[in-house]
Amino acid sequence: MSSTKERLVTAGAELFRRQGYAATGVKQILREAEAPFGSMYHHFPGGKEELAAQAIRTSGALYGLLPEAVLDPAPDLVTGVREFYRLAGVHLEETGWADACPIATVALEVSSTSEPLREACAEVFDGWLVAAIPRFTRHGIAADRSRELAIALVCQLEGAFVLCRAMRTTEPLDVAGEMMAGVVARELVSP
Amino acid sequence: MSSTKERLVTAGAELFRRQGYAATGVKQILREAEAPFGSMYHHFPGGKEELAAQAIRTSGALYGLLPEAVLDPAPDLVTGVREFYRLAGVHLEETGWADACPIATVALEVSSTSEPLREACAEVFDGWLVAAIPRFTRHGIAADRSRELAIALVCQLEGAFVLCRAMRTTEPLDVAGEMMAGVVARELVSP
Repeated sequence: MSSTKERLVTAGAELFRRQGYAATGVKQILREAEAPFGSMYHHFPGGKEELAAQAIRTSGALYGLLPEAVLDPAPDLVTGVREFYRLAGVHLEETGWADACPIATVALEVSSTSEPLREACAEVFDGWLVAAIPRFTRHGIAADRSRELAIALVCQLEGAFVLCRAMRTTEPLDVAGEMMAGVVARELVSP
Repeated sequence: MSSTKERLVTAGAELFRRQGYAATGVKQILREAEAPFGSMYHHFPGGKEELAAQAIRTSGALYGLLPEAVLDPAPDLVTGVREFYRLAGVHLEETGWADACPIATVALEVSSTSEPLREACAEVFDGWLVAAIPRFTRHGIAADRSRELAIALVCQLEGAFVLCRAMRTTEPLDVAGEMMAGVVARELVSP
């Protein structure tokens, strides 16, 4: 990707995460990216929708690296799960309750209105789930059950983000972390 | 509320739920509500934002009646919890993956951009949590723990809606229902 194209994707991803897809105009993306007007349609002939599809895939892939960064240094999986939600809360509060999931806002907005963007969101979620499964199977948990755990962990995180951002408190993420750490702990004891 | 005002709120709530706040224009609300142009600013001098605040509170209150409708006829709380998520999935699929939570899309869009709408969303979520607590305390679960269970149930539901709508499958809601039914069952055995 050229530097201008990268800046457009990064600026778009950031704006979509904070205020959503529909509220974000092409002019605002160009301004945030400090990019010339013509660069938008040069790099994205399909306009905002094409840029958004790329922003979803790029930030989804980046966000997908976080479990590795947080879970691997943890002394054990249960501690890592609890820590993941706790750190998400710390980051959310530090960014003025703005930086939660880069996908969820757009996913809810476009699921019924843009098939290309819905597909990009679905790909990202599916990628996260597939990547999470080995974290449980390596502890002897069956593949089917591991997928269920991955789904529950992602759902709990996404929902906690919704409540935390609206209610301006990390309580939902903290509760979610304790709750899911407990679920994983019980699974490790009796898979 | 006058009939025209009610139709405006209902049409707004429906559009916000399906496509979000920013993507919904005043003209579209008026058209869906079959309301004359002047009625919007007659009933809502604050425009779309004022209508949205009322739509959030009204649909939040309506949606808050669902736990009673689903949980009370169930033979027990655990069955009721599982059934709640399952029925949410059935309804979501029947409506072409459109009708999930009436609050979450707007909540994510406006949490960083509209203080009156963020507050309306926070009020709704808080109301749901407060209403859910007695469903657990009446089984002898401590009030603090009951609030945690309520938070985890709402977060799991909201997150499952995000994944189901994007991925076009009820799998996340079905998994969420089983997972949370298990959490509640264990809590009832050893509070």
